[in-house]
This record gives sequence, C-alpha cells and structure tokens, in this order.
Amino acid sequence: MIMNRVKTDIQGFDDMLGGGFLPQTANLVEGAPGTGKTTLGMQFIYNGIVKYNEPGLIITFEEFPQQYYHDAASFGWDFAKLEAEGKLKVIMTSPEVSKADLENVGGIIETQVAQMGVRRILVDSITHFDRLTQNPTELRRIEYGFINALKREGVTSLLTKESSALLGEAPEGDSEIAFVVDSYSILRYVEIDSAISKAILVLKMRGSDHAKDIRQYEIDSQTGFQLKSKFEGQEGILSGNPRRSMVDAFDEAFIK
Amino acid sequence: MIMNRVKTDIQGFDDMLGGGFLPQTANLVEGAPGTGKTTLGMQFIYNGIVKYNEPGLIITFEEFPQQYYHDAASFGWDFAKLEAEGKLKVIMTSPEVSKADLENVGGIIETQVAQMGVRRILVDSITHFDRLTQNPTELRRIEYGFINALKREGVTSLLTKESSALLGEAPEGDSEIAFVVDSYSILRYVEIDSAISKAILVLKMRGSDHAKDIRQYEIDSQTGFQLKSKFEGQEGILSGNPRRSMVDAFDEAFIK
Amino acid sequence: MIMNRVKTDIQGFDDMLGGGFLPQTANLVEGAPGTGKTTLGMQFIYNGIVKYNEPGLIITFEEFPQQYYHDAASFGWDFAKLEAEGKLKVIMTSPEVSKADLENVGGIIETQVAQMGVRRILVDSITHFDRLTQNPTELRRIEYGFINALKREGVTSLLTKESSALLGEAPEGDSEIAFVVDSYSILRYVEIDSAISKAILVLKMRGSDHAKDIRQYEIDSQTGFQLKSKFEGQEGILSGNPRRSMVDAFDEAFIK
Amino acid sequence: MIMNRVKTDIQGFDDMLGGGFLPQTANLVEGAPGTGKTTLGMQFIYNGIVKYNEPGLIITFEEFPQQYYHDAASFGWDFAKLEAEGKLKVIMTSPEVSKADLENVGGIIETQVAQMGVRRILVDSITHFDRLTQNPTELRRIEYGFINALKREGVTSLLTKESSALLGEAPEGDSEIAFVVDSYSILRYVEIDSAISKAILVLKMRGSDHAKDIRQYEIDSQTGFQLKSKFEGQEGILSGNPRRSMVDAFDEAFIK
Amino acid sequence: MIMNRVKTDIQGFDDMLGGGFLPQTANLVEGAPGTGKTTLGMQFIYNGIVKYNEPGLIITFEEFPQQYYHDAASFGWDFAKLEAEGKLKVIMTSPEVSKADLENVGGIIETQVAQMGVRRILVDSITHFDRLTQNPTELRRIEYGFINALKREGVTSLLTKESSALLGEAPEGDSEIAFVVDSYSILRYVEIDSAISKAILVLKMRGSDHAKDIRQYEIDSQTGFQLKSKFEGQEGILSGNPRRSMVDAFDEAFIK
Amino acid sequence: MIMNRVKTDIQGFDDMLGGGFLPQTANLVEGAPGTGKTTLGMQFIYNGIVKYNEPGLIITFEEFPQQYYHDAASFGWDFAKLEAEGKLKVIMTSPEVSKADLENVGGIIETQVAQMGVRRILVDSITHFDRLTQNPTELRRIEYGFINALKREGVTSLLTKESSALLGEAPEGDSEIAFVVDSYSILRYVEIDSAISKAILVLKMRGSDHAKDIRQYEIDSQTGFQLKSKFEGQEGILSGNPRRSMVDAFDEAFIK
Repeated sequence: MIMNRVKTDIQGFDDMLGGGFLPQTANLVEGAPGTGKTTLGMQFIYNGIVKYNEPGLIITFEEFPQQYYHDAASFGWDFAKLEAEGKLKVIMTSPEVSKADLENVGGIIETQVAQMGVRRILVDSITHFDRLTQNPTELRRIEYGFINALKREGVTSLLTKESSALLGEAPEGDSEIAFVVDSYSILRYVEIDSAISKAILVLKMRGSDHAKDIRQYEIDSQTGFQLKSKFEGQEGILSGNPRRSMVDAFDEAFIK
Repeated sequence: MIMNRVKTDIQGFDDMLGGGFLPQTANLVEGAPGTGKTTLGMQFIYNGIVKYNEPGLIITFEEFPQQYYHDAASFGWDFAKLEAEGKLKVIMTSPEVSKADLENVGGIIETQVAQMGVRRILVDSITHFDRLTQNPTELRRIEYGFINALKREGVTSLLTKESSALLGEAPEGDSEIAFVVDSYSILRYVEIDSAISKAILVLKMRGSDHAKDIRQYEIDSQTGFQLKSKFEGQEGILSGNPRRSMVDAFDEAFIK
Repeated sequence: MIMNRVKTDIQGFDDMLGGGFLPQTANLVEGAPGTGKTTLGMQFIYNGIVKYNEPGLIITFEEFPQQYYHDAASFGWDFAKLEAEGKLKVIMTSPEVSKADLENVGGIIETQVAQMGVRRILVDSITHFDRLTQNPTELRRIEYGFINALKREGVTSLLTKESSALLGEAPEGDSEIAFVVDSYSILRYVEIDSAISKAILVLKMRGSDHAKDIRQYEIDSQTGFQLKSKFEGQEGILSGNPRRSMVDAFDEAFIK
Repeated sequence: MIMNRVKTDIQGFDDMLGGGFLPQTANLVEGAPGTGKTTLGMQFIYNGIVKYNEPGLIITFEEFPQQYYHDAASFGWDFAKLEAEGKLKVIMTSPEVSKADLENVGGIIETQVAQMGVRRILVDSITHFDRLTQNPTELRRIEYGFINALKREGVTSLLTKESSALLGEAPEGDSEIAFVVDSYSILRYVEIDSAISKAILVLKMRGSDHAKDIRQYEIDSQTGFQLKSKFEGQEGILSGNPRRSMVDAFDEAFIK
Repeated sequence: MIMNRVKTDIQGFDDMLGGGFLPQTANLVEGAPGTGKTTLGMQFIYNGIVKYNEPGLIITFEEFPQQYYHDAASFGWDFAKLEAEGKLKVIMTSPEVSKADLENVGGIIETQVAQMGVRRILVDSITHFDRLTQNPTELRRIEYGFINALKREGVTSLLTKESSALLGEAPEGDSEIAFVVDSYSILRYVEIDSAISKAILVLKMRGSDHAKDIRQYEIDSQTGFQLKSKFEGQEGILSGNPRRSMVDAFDEAFIK
Repeated sequence: MIMNRVKTDIQGFDDMLGGGFLPQTANLVEGAPGTGKTTLGMQFIYNGIVKYNEPGLIITFEEFPQQYYHDAASFGWDFAKLEAEGKLKVIMTSPEVSKADLENVGGIIETQVAQMGVRRILVDSITHFDRLTQNPTELRRIEYGFINALKREGVTSLLTKESSALLGEAPEGDSEIAFVVDSYSILRYVEIDSAISKAILVLKMRGSDHAKDIRQYEIDSQTGFQLKSKFEGQEGILSGNPRRSMVDAFDEAFIK
C-alpha cells in the first residue's frame, strides 16, 4: 500500500519518517525546554504553506500569536505575511475551548478548515490538556477524542509535548498519549565532550517503516532544523549522559 | 504430556514458546508505545484464520474497528474481507461491558464464540481494566475472573499490556496481572550503536519449557513480526541502555 | 543440637538448606512471576508424600484446585490420584477464612491435620494477606499469628511471596514478613549473555547454617527444579543485570 | 535579523549567549545554594549601570536590601552610591505584591521604570512564586503573566531559580518555568579530582544561536564571575559526579 | 578519660568498639532479615551473664520467650537454666506498655533491675516503636525518652533495628533514632563472587574512638558471631553489590 | 574589603574557610549521624572561649546539658568549669520558645548576650525547626527570621543540620535553609578500601573565597576535629561510594 507523504521538508527528518508523516495522522514530538519542539512545528507549518501550498493552523494554549511571528522571523519566516494572505492562522485558545470546539459542528477549527482549506495543524502544546482532569483515564479519553476529531477534519497534525526532565526520561514515565498517536518522535539533550548536543529519534510510526537511528541535530537561523549524522561510539545516548564505548575508546587511544 | 500448540506462525516466536501457545490459555504481551503489541496480536489472529482456519475475535477498548482494518492493511491483511466471511469480528466495547458480558450467560463474547466458532481472542489492551478500580486486590480479582471466563469459552487469548516506561522496567514495578496469566512475553526498546533496536523475550510460560534468549526483532510490511538472532556481546539489555561487554570490546579492538 | 530435616528432595536445594527445612518452621520463598515459586512448593508437597509418606495440604487464595492438578501433571505428578488416596488436599479459600480458621478450634486446617495427618503445607501465596489491612503493623501481626498457628499444628510450611519487580529488589523494599519467618529463599531473574537465567539463594535460616552461594537453576518437565552450579565471573547478580567481572573478562579475552 | 544585545559584560558569558541577552526578554538562571545565582544577577545589574548607563531594579522576596549592599561591596560594587544617584533600586516585596503590582496601572515596578528609566531587572528568586499556589497549571499561568508584564515594561529581566539538589538534576524534574522563559542557563556543582568545581551552560535561547559548551567558572572578589575553558576529558558533568573518560585516562596513564 | 567497657565478648567486635560498649549507653544494631541482629543481642546478654556475672533482660515485642530459648539453644546457650537461676528474664510486652512502664515508678523494667540487678538489656526490636505514632517528631521524642529512661536505670542497652532493604540503604533513608543513640552498628548483606557475605561496621560511637573497617562476619553454631578480616579489593561494599576494584583486577589477571 | 575572621581554631578548617567564619554570620554544618556535627560545634564554642575569650552559648532542642558536659569531657574540654566561670551557657529549650524568644525584647538569648557578652552560638540542631510547620515556605520564613535575629544580636552562629541519608545526598534533596545561611559545610561518610572515611567540604561561603577541596578528617580525643589532606585518585566521593579513578588504577597496577 503506497501513500503520499506529508513532507516536513526538514532536511533528514522526512527520511527518518520514511518520506514524511502519513496523511491525516496525529504526530507527537516530545522534548525538554529549548530542544526546539515549537520550531520543528512551525517549520512543518511554514514548509507546508510555501512549498506545498497547504494552508496551516497553529493552535496555542499559552503563547500569544505575536510570539510566533517573532520567533518565526528569526528564521526568516514571515508569518504575518502568510496570515495576511489567508494561508496561515495562529489561534490562541484554551484546551477547554479546543475540546468543545471539535465536539460541536461549526467550531473555530472546523471553520478554518472549511474557509482556509487548512491541511496542517500544529498544537503547541498538548501538555496543556493535562490541566483538564486529574484522572489519567479521563485525560486519555479526551486526548484520543481530540486527536480523532482532528483526523476527521482531514488534516495532518503535529502535537508538541513537554518533557519535565532535562536529561533522559522523566522519572514518572511518559503520559499515555504516546499510545494513541500515529507517530512519536523524541528530542533529547545529550552531553558529549563537555558540551550539550541534541538528539532526535522516531520511536513509533504506525503503519510504516521508519529509521531507527538516533541522530544529532542543530537549529540555526538559516535553515531551522538541520539533522546531522548519527552519533558514533557512544552508549546510553537516551539517558542524556552517555559513555564512550570501550571499543571506540581503545581505538582512539591506541590505534588512531 | 504432549499438547497441540496454538501457533502464532510468527517466524521464531513459536520456537521461543516451545511450539506456540498452549490451548485455552491467557497470554500476556507487554510493551512500550510503538513496540508492536497490537501488530503481534493482529498477526496472531490473522494467521489463525488464514493458516489454521480458526476464527478470531478482537476486543478493543479504545481504537475503532476501522483503525484495525487500516493498520492490518499496511501488512496486506484484509480484515474487512475476513469479517465479511464471518471469520473475524472486531468489537469495540468497554472494560465494564466486557467484564459483565462474561459473567452472564449469552453475552456478546459467548455469542460470537458460539456463532462463529471463535478460537482465538485478542484483548487490546488489558491495561484499560486499570480504570475499573483503584484497588489492586479488586483489580486482580476482576482480571483473574475475566481470564478464566475466556478460558471457559475454550479460546486461546492474547492480552496486550502497555508499559509506561520507554526504556527498561516501569519504576512502580509491573502490575499483578503477570502472576495470573499463563505466559508472559515482553517487548523492549534497546539502544545499541546509536540506534533503537527492539527485543523480545518470553519470561514465563506455565506448564511448558520455553527459550530464555533475548532476541532482536523487526516489523516490516511484508511479514509483520520478524524475529532475528539473539543479541551478542551486550550486558543489561533489559535496562534498555546496555553496555558492550568487556570481552566483546577487547575482542573487537585488539583481536578482530 | 541435631535435628531431623524436612527434605524438599529438590536436587541441591536441600544441600543449600543444610539438609532441608527445620521441622515445624515457616519457610518463605519469594520470586517474580514465572520464577517457579508455586512449582517449588508443589514439589515440596509432592516429594513429601511419595518419598517420605508425609501427607500434604495446599492452601490457595486464587487459583482453582484444577489449576494445580493441571500444572502438576506437566511434571508427571498425579495430584488427583494423591488426593483420592487421602494423602493430599488442595483447598481454595480466602485469607480472611484462613486467618479465622486457625484462630478457632476445629477449623478446616486443624481438621485436615487431624484427619489426614498433614505434615507439610504450601500457602500460595502469602502475598494475598496484604489485602487484609492497609496497616503494616496490623499485617505483620496477622501474618505472625498465622505462621505461629501453623507451627502449633506441628506442620512444616512453605509460603510463597510475589515480588513486584521483574529484576532486582522491589523499590519499596520487601514487606516485613521476612523478619518473622524461619527461612527466606529468593528466586531471581538474571540477564546473562542475552538470555534470562534464574538464580536461587537462601538468605536467612534461623537456627542453622546454610549455603551462601547464589546458584543457577532450571525447571524442566522431567525433574521440576534443578539446581546448577553457582554463577561464575559475574558481579551484581541480585540486581538482575550483572556485569562480567574484570578479572574474568581479561581472562577470557587475553588468556584463554 | 540582527538585534542589539543586552550585555552582561561577564567575561565569556556574553560569548556563550551569542553576544548577550536579547532585549526585552526574560532570562532564567538556575543553581544550587552557593553557585552564585545572585552574584551573577547583581553583576548583570551593576555592569548595566556603570558600563551601559542602563538603570537597574532588584526585586527580592526574602533578603533585605542591606544584604545586597553588603554582598555587592565584597566585589567592590557600591550599590548604596548607585542607589543614591538614582540608577539602582532594591525593592523587597512579596510575590503576591509583585504579581498584583504588574497587573495594575501605576504599580511600583511600572513607576520605577517610568521614573528611573529602568532597563534591567533582577528577580531574586522566582522560586518564591511557588508559594502562591499548589496548582502547577495556575503557577505557570502566574509566572507567564509576570514575565510578560516585565516584557511589556520594555525591560530585560534576569530571574534566579533555586535548585533543590546539590548535585545533578532535582529528582522531581524542573518546574515548568523553563518552558516559558526566553533563555535558560544552569549553574552546577561538579566533583573533579576531589574538589568541587562549578559549571555553567546555556541550555536554551529563543530566537538565537548560543554556545553549547559546559564551561568551568569561578567567582572571585576582583571580577565576580569568571568563565574558564570547557571541561576536558570528563563524561557526565551534568550529573555532578563525572567520570574521567577512558580515552583521557589511557592517554594520561600510558602516553603522556 | 578512661572508662571500663561493657564487653560483648564477641570475637573482634569489642575491638571494633574500642574495647566494648560504654557503660550506661544505648547501642543500635541495624540489619536486614537474617543478618543476625537478634543473635548478636542474645550473645551480648549471654556473655554478660556467664562471663561477667551481669544479669540480663530481654524485652521483645513480637517473639515469644520460647523462641529465644529455642534460638539460643542452637548456639548451646541454655537460657531456660539462666532464667531459672534468676540471671535472665525474657519479657514479651508491647511498645505501649514499655513506654508507660519506664515513665512510672515501679514498672516492670525498674522492678527487674532492682530485683535481679540487671545490667544489660536487649530491646528486640526498637522498630516496633514505629507503630506508636505516624509523626516522626513524636516518635523521636518517645524513643529518646525511652533510651534515657534505660540509661537512668543504669543499664547498658542494645537495641535492634530492622532494615527494610535487603541490599544497601533503605531508599527512604534511615529513621532518626540513629541520631539519639550512643553507638550505631550496621549489618549488611554483600554479594561477592556469586555468594552472599555479611559485613559489619561501626558507624558512630559517641565519646570514643572506634574502628572504621568494614569487616566480614559469619554466624556459626559453635561461637555465634565470628568477625573475620576486612574485605579486600572491593569498592561499594555498603551498596551490597560491590565491584572488584581495578587495581585488584589487574593484579589478579596479569600479575598474580 | 578585609574583615576579621571568627576562627574555629580547628586545624585546617579555618584555612578552608579562608581564615574562619565571617563575623555576625550564620553557618550551616550538615552531616549524617556520627559524622561529628555536634563535636565541631562544641569545638567552635570551646576554642572561642579559651583562645579568644569569646563567651559562648549552646542552644539544644533535645539533648540535656549534662550530655554536652559528658561529651565535651571526652575531649578534655571542661564545660562545667566554663559555665561556672560565666563564659558558657548550655540552654535546653524548644524551637517554639527559641523562635518566640528572639522575636521579643528581653528574651533568654538576648539576655545571655547582654549579661555574658556571648559572641558565639551553637544551635544543635536546626533540623528540629522542621517540626514547627509542615509548610516549606513557612518553615523557611521562620528559619530566615531566626537567623537574622541571631545576626542582630551580633553573634556568629553555627547551626547543625541532620542528613537523613547515610551515604550521599538525601533523596528528597536538601531543605531550603542552605539558601539562607552565609556558609554551608558538609560532612560525609565515604567508603574507601573497605573502611569508612569522613569527608568535609565547604560548599558555599557568602562574600568570601574558600577552598574547594574535599578533605578527609578524623576525630580523636586529643584534638577533636583533625583535617587531613584531600582524597587522591577517587571519583564520586560525594556519593559516598567512590570509585578509584582509572588513571590512578593504571598507575598503581602497572607503573608504581
């Protein structure tokens, strides 16, 4: 079964995804503060508009739209212009409203999809849904319902998720949303050679093969996300505090 | 005592199980998001139908039947056709209903078993039973009752279980259901050489010998689950962040 | 002071115990799911009957007697026949009843001891007593009372205990029952060379010397428990994720 | 897009920040007791006044202004004189008042900005906001509101944050404020060669590139913060208990 | 200042204590189940009677006096005879009674001290005081009061304390009683060479120097506690899972 | 800015502090049971009296004054004589009284300072303030107020703090008092070569430079605290379970 992919057009990331996201799927991207979750999401939206003519919607529960314009501008992405052209909309709302919105006919999201022909949505961040309930079962039901409502609108969504640990996995384990999304990518800090690198991996992709490598990436003002080669000679990268593998150490000390 | 085995027909997995599951047993498969629990379950059901003519039932507490058709299709398994032929049924229900169903005569599951001659059942996932009660003793009683009711129906069941930790064992320890099932298999992510591998092992199999190896596996769209050889030269695989063993490192650095 | 020992007749285990359990003692065996706690207990009961003509009683709080017949049969132990001969009784009851039973004259257990001449009792598992109270002091008092009541009946008991962690020690520490029993043996999973081994050790034995080795064991359908030699060249076995010791690694890489 | 930077004039730190903080941003500096968070903040304020003629405001929720005069004096910074000249103000207040203050027109902070032309603000420490509510969502909303109010005043703020762990990351993970600030720098204790070093890194900087190195620093009475070279030959610096890397150890033992 | 010591007459232990316990002090001995806390305490009492003619009292909150007679007998100590001779008393009571007893004139303990001339007391175990209150401050006040009341009676006491972790330190840290006793000794399990050794150390001794070594010990039916030499070539003994030190490993592999 | 130092006259410790404590400061010393916190505090008071003629006050919340006389006597310090001479006062009180005392004019502490000319105060231990409130913010406010009241009296205070973990850092992190004191020293147990050493370090010293070394110390009846050289060739000392560094191990095994 061959499907067209929804390309992020982010160098290397589409390759890791086996060509891009699958259409009409919900895709989770998780990371600690400063790993670039929002940047990845904005680039997904921006590239969709300018390279594939797919209008985009950004739903935010905290930051003002101005912050997105400002942050996008630092990469040379003119969000204000795109919004003026009717190709982008940044909506600041609350999880409560978003949830109700999709449950009713003619809500804001449905309206934007209908009017603008929105094809891509960034939800930044889905972590804000945590405040809707203390009950994990109820939270999962709400998130699953929200994700399915987005799919019914026919859009491909990218959901950011905040990780509360700076290095490695949060001690309380990850929330259950990873079980209900279609793909799950992780951004991590990694300490190597007395400096902080960043690592990206695709852990899960439903209905498709994907790369298993843990790759380095950087974010620069020219291109946004830039994926590099995979790490070499390190063990325990996902813990954030990797150790040089012995073979590698012997090699460098005695042979090279 | 020799018994016929209920074969999964998954390459290598039946070997690990000593030939397959034992008939009329409840078999637990646990894994983190994206490890392929549901795929393993669908393959168990699909192979049962097409290779052994054993009708199958899928009980889901979250995903819509369409999601199963869709996911199965990515492996070339035509679930819709099988359902049309009366060999497969996907039922979306709730833990509350399932539990009550098996406690009463003539419930849905009993009906399907009687009408379709169901021999295999996939319960995806048993983790949803957690919401029935906060009391671990009560939860165990319910799950044990549910498992025994399935056995009384004469079917062989595969129960998936969600692991809340991405790497290694969940910090709070595993729930008590592992004590009451007949077999217990674990799917784990393992970081090796800057990439994510997947590992499978059979930890428990009541009334039968089984392989103790921790083996690599992949999931591809041609064959679904594909078991590979066991890992070599690694220590601490089940922690998810293994280290290369010293002997192996010396070997590779100085001898090979 | 020399005492006759209550032999388990399990190859090697009696040696570790210094000849067997001491008469009229309560003996705890703890392990994760699939480590074979119940098998060890059944073998203790079975061997007592067929080799020493000591009638046995199995008290279970969850499994039906049929499950024991079935599981025993996979080792060639005909429990139904023994029960028909009046040498074995499998009683499914509740912790509440068991506790009250021993506190009153003429309870079920006392009756069986009187009528059948029961000498060995398997309580499978004592973990079910946890549900009697949330208060650890109260729980300890109950368990201590139960253990003493068994001793007063003149029997030697084996109590199984479930460990909630798959590898290593449960994070919350072990319950207090280990302080009040007469012996305490532990079954553990150990990952070595990409496979799961099983380890047994006797941690405590009141009033007697015992072996301190951590030994490997296997369970097979011919003989049940089979103790092997102790592990070699490994550190941290009880953590479940041991490392090859350096000396051993140097040896194997450079010398052997 | 090129922006003027708000220079801290701290040797090396501006370089790590890509030239300094971005104007009108909120910048978080986190550290354990004694790492010098407050000193860094005072130096930011002091240098702003004497080198760039940018009046500064210090908001404290615990220490009396006299403590700042006293601590500053140990570095040769005459805060009393600066305050007399109308270039500095140290205000001791409460989180409750600060929050209300910024929400109303004509509050103390707004007044100081208007009257003194304040350009830089030190909030020491934002951790005191934790007492405003037990609810993490509510706390985040308050902190985000406070940060935005500061930005609306046109000032560049430095917020200190207390880390409850002496070494490494606090077990409960870091609070959510790191997600809403514009930059996030971390001060850490590191044990190396039986002594305590201090490490600084910039983990996050919104809208700008920044150095990824983990650098040593010292605090002396001549210059305040002094950044040194990055650490060499150590793994796991951020854990606080690093290990010498193997390559480095081989080098030093056998080659140097 | 030279003081007579209260000798335990346990081989090597008195040496570690600098000659024995100090008179009229409270001495804590902590250990996991099976480490021999009670044996150490019984030996302290027994040796006091037969070697120094100092009558002894054993206060137990759980075990029946018969258990002590029985356990002592396995070491050849005839407690029944000593009790008949008026030199030993084993009292089973409750923490509530013990506490009240010492607060009032003429309680049981005071009576025994007066009538028998008791000089040594074993409290087995002080852990049972935990049930008197949930409040740690209140518990500490009670324990401190109890300890001081024992001192006022002029006796030297040994208090056993249960450790809830099998290996290493209990995760919740140790209770506060260690701060108020006069000496604090620890018994620990240690895994070395695939076997379980036992380690003893004296961590604290108020008003006296003491040995800092961590020494191996065994318990045998001839002599009770037998202290051996200190461990050699191991790091991390107190964690329970030590590693062979590198120097030692190099030595053994390449040099010996 | 040069200030006279308040010397502890403890060999090596004054050097670590850059000459001694700063006048009119509050200085925290933290350690596990048996590390010698109280001894350090008594020595600070004793040396102040006999070497600098600075009268001292000891405030205790648990131990009776007699215990201090007794403990001091084991070092040859005659506290009773000093108290008779009006140069020392040991007051046993409660945190509640101490707190109220300093808030009111003419309290006990103020009276002693006025009458005796007290210059040094030992508060043993500040941990007892924990019982005043469950609220960490309130506790911090109280402790900060208490510390400042002591400063207003013009005295230099040493506050002891109990660490609940025997080895390494307490899992719950340290309390917030470390943020409000002027200096913070830590006493730690360290396992090296199968023995327990003790380590001291000065982590924080406001307004002054200080040594960063982690140094060994011993306590003996001749001199009390005796600081030794820093540790050599060990990594992870503050964890309590250090490992020999590789370079050091290579050195010792192959070169020395």
